[in-house]
Amino acid sequence: MNPDIRKERENATFNVEILTSILDGSPEKTRRRREIETLVINDPDFQHEDLNFLSRSERYDAAVKKSAQMILKLREYGISDPEEIYCYKSCVHRGRPEPLDLHLGMFLPTLLNQATPEQMDALFMPAWNLEIIGTYAQTEIGHGTHLRGLETTATYDPATQEFVMNSPTVTSIKWWPGGLGKTSNHAIVLAQLHTQGKSHGLHAFIVAIRSMGTHMPLPGVVVGDIGPKFGFDEVDNGYLKLENVRIPRENMLMKFAKVEPDGTYVKPPSSKLTYGTMVFIRSMIVGESSRALSKACTIAVRYSVVRHQSEIRAGEPEPQILDYQTQQHKLFPLLATAYAFHFVGQYMNQTYHRITGDISHGDFSELPELHALSAGLKAFTTWTANAGIEVCRMSCGGHGYSRSSGLPDIYVTFTPTCTYEGENTVMMLQTARFLMKSYRQARGGQQLSGIVSYLNESERRLQPQPVSARPTVVNINDLASLVEVYKLRAAKLVELAAKSIQQELQQRRSQEDAWNRSSIDLVRAADAHCHYVVVKLFAAKLGEIGDTGVHSVLSGLALLYALHGVTLHSGDFLQADLLSVPQVNQANQRVKELLAQLRPNAVALVDAYDYRDQMLNSVLGRYDGQVYENMFEWARKSPLNRTEVHDSYHKYLKPLQSKL
Amino acid sequence: MNPDIRKERENATFNVEILTSILDGSPEKTRRRREIETLVINDPDFQHEDLNFLSRSERYDAAVKKSAQMILKLREYGISDPEEIYCYKSCVHRGRPEPLDLHLGMFLPTLLNQATPEQMDALFMPAWNLEIIGTYAQTEIGHGTHLRGLETTATYDPATQEFVMNSPTVTSIKWWPGGLGKTSNHAIVLAQLHTQGKSHGLHAFIVAIRSMGTHMPLPGVVVGDIGPKFGFDEVDNGYLKLENVRIPRENMLMKFAKVEPDGTYVKPPSSKLTYGTMVFIRSMIVGESSRALSKACTIAVRYSVVRHQSEIRAGEPEPQILDYQTQQHKLFPLLATAYAFHFVGQYMNQTYHRITGDISHGDFSELPELHALSAGLKAFTTWTANAGIEVCRMSCGGHGYSRSSGLPDIYVTFTPTCTYEGENTVMMLQTARFLMKSYRQARGGQQLSGIVSYLNESERRLQPQPVSARPTVVNINDLASLVEVYKLRAAKLVELAAKSIQQELQQRRSQEDAWNRSSIDLVRAADAHCHYVVVKLFAAKLGEIGDTGVHSVLSGLALLYALHGVTLHSGDFLQADLLSVPQVNQANQRVKELLAQLRPNAVALVDAYDYRDQMLNSVLGRYDGQVYENMFEWARKSPLNRTEVHDSYHKYLKPLQSKL
Repeated sequence: MNPDIRKERENATFNVEILTSILDGSPEKTRRRREIETLVINDPDFQHEDLNFLSRSERYDAAVKKSAQMILKLREYGISDPEEIYCYKSCVHRGRPEPLDLHLGMFLPTLLNQATPEQMDALFMPAWNLEIIGTYAQTEIGHGTHLRGLETTATYDPATQEFVMNSPTVTSIKWWPGGLGKTSNHAIVLAQLHTQGKSHGLHAFIVAIRSMGTHMPLPGVVVGDIGPKFGFDEVDNGYLKLENVRIPRENMLMKFAKVEPDGTYVKPPSSKLTYGTMVFIRSMIVGESSRALSKACTIAVRYSVVRHQSEIRAGEPEPQILDYQTQQHKLFPLLATAYAFHFVGQYMNQTYHRITGDISHGDFSELPELHALSAGLKAFTTWTANAGIEVCRMSCGGHGYSRSSGLPDIYVTFTPTCTYEGENTVMMLQTARFLMKSYRQARGGQQLSGIVSYLNESERRLQPQPVSARPTVVNINDLASLVEVYKLRAAKLVELAAKSIQQELQQRRSQEDAWNRSSIDLVRAADAHCHYVVVKLFAAKLGEIGDTGVHSVLSGLALLYALHGVTLHSGDFLQADLLSVPQVNQANQRVKELLAQLRPNAVALVDAYDYRDQMLNSVLGRYDGQVYENMFEWARKSPLNRTEVHDSYHKYLKPLQSKL
Repeated sequence: MNPDIRKERENATFNVEILTSILDGSPEKTRRRREIETLVINDPDFQHEDLNFLSRSERYDAAVKKSAQMILKLREYGISDPEEIYCYKSCVHRGRPEPLDLHLGMFLPTLLNQATPEQMDALFMPAWNLEIIGTYAQTEIGHGTHLRGLETTATYDPATQEFVMNSPTVTSIKWWPGGLGKTSNHAIVLAQLHTQGKSHGLHAFIVAIRSMGTHMPLPGVVVGDIGPKFGFDEVDNGYLKLENVRIPRENMLMKFAKVEPDGTYVKPPSSKLTYGTMVFIRSMIVGESSRALSKACTIAVRYSVVRHQSEIRAGEPEPQILDYQTQQHKLFPLLATAYAFHFVGQYMNQTYHRITGDISHGDFSELPELHALSAGLKAFTTWTANAGIEVCRMSCGGHGYSRSSGLPDIYVTFTPTCTYEGENTVMMLQTARFLMKSYRQARGGQQLSGIVSYLNESERRLQPQPVSARPTVVNINDLASLVEVYKLRAAKLVELAAKSIQQELQQRRSQEDAWNRSSIDLVRAADAHCHYVVVKLFAAKLGEIGDTGVHSVLSGLALLYALHGVTLHSGDFLQADLLSVPQVNQANQRVKELLAQLRPNAVALVDAYDYRDQMLNSVLGRYDGQVYENMFEWARKSPLNRTEVHDSYHKYLKPLQSKL
């Protein structure tokens, strides 16, 4: 153990194990997680060479190998709880996506939700046993978030009782689905249904794309890998072009909508929105924001106590770089953010389960709000974490650029969350739409429930008041008081956005143009709303924590999170007259004090996330702090060092010398 | 040509060619640049497969091949002007770094500057003709920016008249130098000189590391590649461990300091700072910030007029995504930033040449300020461009993650600029140190010259004044007026940082601790200073532009740059009472108007950068806008598609099916 990092651990003021179990949910969950991790990490079938040293094709190969092993072992061990499967899978693939992700996460669940009993009989067991390997093909090369724009067609031919599937244009080629390129032999294809000369919008069809025996593409199917990406090297994201591919009528997923043998279209009984699933997926992504950011913080904080550099006082030894205020200012607010997002993810997940858990007694009235909020929180947390990972990477100096640091991989694995499952700006605008609706209701005198109820309150509060009544009572050291000002900031920005729309409408612009011309303000309002929710949930979490040591350190983190946000957005608080200039200065000063106060607990706070070295895969973030010797060892094993002299010397450099 | 992008070009209100020549410096320079580009791009020797499809070793191989060809052709064509060499080289390697960068950019120039005439005789021609291929080995695995911390030793042995070179610890291993791993047979090694029992600090030594005949590492030399990185796949950044490697006394670069045969150390006549070179390199990096960001903007803007998505008005066709206000708000301020940074780079370069151009008549009095400013500007521009490239990438939706977009490559090639040639936070603090010194001088009544002279002025202005005298005269539509408020903001933040130091000192902290405990404020002050300089230089550039159409569009960009900064940092302006709340609201409103105003010229503004498709290497950024068909074609050629069925199917998936 590096002595610097040992000393850090000795100086911590709280019990790390208690905090770990709070993060996991309970001591029992911590125990079980560790059990599964040990199972995977000690399994010789899951050992592999450093992926950074392999070609793309080798990385895909290694991932398929591990995925196949994983399926066998999950069944062997009888692991069936979704959370446990997720844990096992993350551990096998070290947090990376893998070729069977869409088979397990989209193909099978879509069958469960949308297949008729007959379809289930025919398809589910083959899919469960991986004779059918499926993916979910929605996005097209020219069409993403806007589903109505998709161009793939499924035209019913009553003569043969088949659908004729086509990709009529270049822009209609299916593009991006994971596992589509090489792994899958089936795809659920989203296509515009045409029957009896009429179009009926988007429906889902099961399409066989490769032969079950030879795995060769079937006639009319042009399928392949979309090529190298920024990360995701293990996944064969694919393209699919369909040229008059005929599938039996039974291959339309017909639990809801139907096409009769004669081609008659039968509408689904109700076009229920699948709010629930989207909320669940977004709560997972919010959790992923915390996970990715906390991994990056773990690496950067540990390395910052091992790394000595430059000098604070002349003549003294080089200090640990975490003693520089600027380094603390880069990392500690991000660490606080990772904790905040973890608790937000927990809240969303729990709320989702509370609402949907017991259908018979369920109260779904909260679902629309949670759905609208989850869109914004997905965007808010992924954007913040995305930028934060890079701050962590760059805080490690040159070594942050080495693949051995693990940081480039964390970034490229995480960054797609800003786009998939709903592009972030579009997500923010969805939340804004809910806020605008709520604002209008509040203005109309309606009493709102849930988190947006502050729009009623602020309706009263934001009216012009005598100067003496203004919130000079804000106490910069009191989290509850800060939650209040975040709330008022959100209310103010919601109002500003609403007023912008009104002004545009007064200039005789259409509703849609007014919306578009106010969309910067709308995103800003949604962002402020999400920020308020995060601060509020972090504060609420503190109330659940009994252990004094942990409570104390988390209170410091929560306060730092809130005050750092105030300093970043001081313009908003000043503009709305929620804080005075001296209060903003006080917030700046208090942030500096909190950085110093958190310094002794920094390593313990990242240790509490309990990432094993095998999961972090970072020489800079090693638990034992033995950074440099291991970095040297890693480098020596890298591919260019397999020979002392690279071929290019003999091919190009030596001949060049004789020509000059 | 895609009709959407053609229409955009038809709608432009200015002559693109005129703007291009302003960016290049003159029409003649544009002509010559194009000539060189054509020379390289049509040269069959420089054709290559898409680098994204190659392994690391193949990419290194391809780069060495091209570098060798390049050396031959530069001599064949007689290209010797440094700017033209740079242009040729960038074109050959498509803007990527290459294995001979340090030989050409550091090894040869260091010989020229620091070798004695005898050393020049012995070394220069072999190095010029690439018998000696050299690199510059300074950074160690445990030591970066802080040069005094370097541990490599050179101990003089008078008995044999040799230096004994050693890497005494793991942390002393040389790490990162480009071309060190595989390409070079010599290195200029920076090491602590010991002679006659005394230490004399860092000096430079020529060390042979590989045999001139076989290219095998020499005895005592452990050399290799440091392994895969985030980008820089073409470069063999290397490590070097020296174990009692003996080099002749003559291999110390002795133009200044010397070691006599008996071991007597002779100090250099003066320890002149090499301010000039650093200013020059930083001006290049500032230019690179503009180049990288403008490439990313070119791709994102062109794609945003080709991409149709979603709807603004129900029932109408999907609009070009550049018609969304949020998309304009992502891209146009970045485009304005790219232009701003281009002009800053031009200014720095010109000022450097003006100051150092004619040594006999040179007035070097401006150099210290320019040096201090260049540190901050390097940090300011690289941080901004770095984040901006990612905004551009993410504005392209899913396709921004594809390597075919070119955006991941721009990012990973650019991001190291935030760390190399001086870590950005350290750079900001260097500028802050100059500002603090200037502030004290101004307080002491001294009249400052140059850009910091505002600290005199603000000394008067920032004193408490009657409310009526405050700058309500700021005209949000007037660039000169905005330059003033940026100046006052910088003055205010410089003052705040200085006061923070004073307060810490009053609490009996040492000078060094007071500095460290104020460093967040110091970075903020330096940042505001740089921001002011950028706005000022952009405004100044407008005065040089005669063409009405170009002047008009650039004025809009400059105003957008300034006002967007106001909205981002509104807290600073409100806090210092430089702007009122209504003025900040007005700035927000004006930004929206400017976005709409710039919309018709967006494509022409990126076209003016005149990046050929071969240089952008992006299917999304193609000049002709034919995005999707080319993306499909690119994907089909990618390595995983070389076979219809990947081996992993037969190895893992098929056997798995039989086991389930």
